[in-house]
Amino acid sequence: MPQITKEIPLDPVAKKTVLRLFTYGLYAVGVAAGEDRNMFTANWVTQVSFEPPLIAMSVQNDGHSIDLIRQSRSFAISVLGDDQRDIAGLLGKRWKLRPEKIEEVAYRLGMTGSPILEDALGSVECIVTDSMAAGDSTLFIGRVMAAEVGREGTPLTMAGAGFRHAG
Amino acid sequence: MPQITKEIPLDPVAKKTVLRLFTYGLYAVGVAAGEDRNMFTANWVTQVSFEPPLIAMSVQNDGHSIDLIRQSRSFAISVLGDDQRDIAGLLGKRWKLRPEKIEEVAYRLGMTGSPILEDALGSVECIVTDSMAAGDSTLFIGRVMAAEVGREGTPLTMAGAGFRHAG
Repeated sequence: MPQITKEIPLDPVAKKTVLRLFTYGLYAVGVAAGEDRNMFTANWVTQVSFEPPLIAMSVQNDGHSIDLIRQSRSFAISVLGDDQRDIAGLLGKRWKLRPEKIEEVAYRLGMTGSPILEDALGSVECIVTDSMAAGDSTLFIGRVMAAEVGREGTPLTMAGAGFRHAG
Repeated sequence: MPQITKEIPLDPVAKKTVLRLFTYGLYAVGVAAGEDRNMFTANWVTQVSFEPPLIAMSVQNDGHSIDLIRQSRSFAISVLGDDQRDIAGLLGKRWKLRPEKIEEVAYRLGMTGSPILEDALGSVECIVTDSMAAGDSTLFIGRVMAAEVGREGTPLTMAGAGFRHAG
């Protein structure tokens, strides 16, 4: 283990300021277990391997979607376009406050049974191959099993949407 | 496990096209074990937990830096500005082809001993708390132990740099 000067505490303002400089896209993530379906807006998403193609996605432990992912072991990621800020806002609302939010958007079910947003720039469906506790969240590793190209467009980003990352 | 129609193979062109729509920032990651130091350009980086503040970073298994991270159990992430595309290009060269590339940039050592890029927009230093095999790469989870705000500026992104993600 490296030597850490225990006397230097983490500056919370600096931490927040720097973490807010990280760049993120915005994605509509679809999850389903049987008839129980949900979509939420995610930004803690990144590819993590080329071969096989793997994606990591961090999901808050206290939400509804994590249960659905644990049951179905699958999820779909739809890439939002820069003209879909309203959808990002809607699907970003907490499920508890808007349990039927998925019914306010147009979606279809993919081959894994996960909801895919209609009119997205593209989508991938993933099967969960691994997961890991990560503080207040859980990191899921998903193997890309299907991919579909949507319409032309520029991807929506956190910065472009004017969304501020909590940091 | 969800039902998968085995007959539908993943379309490699669609997979690449959609994965290239994912949005990434560009970061200069500094790693060191003793006198052996390196910096490389990373984009597979995301925060994964607020409390404690955790970052996930995927590192290719066949590179030099992964050994340094395994030895030191720490790394530093410096956020590149949109005027530092040349540094992203330099540090993105393979270590084997440019083993002294870190000496071509200005850096200092942080409290974990990890190299931090001078003139970055900001930096965080992380202690590795966990790791996970992820295909051709390894996913490291780092707890943010220190953060430093740098100069004003706009973060460099893959899209802004004109770098094409392999997908």
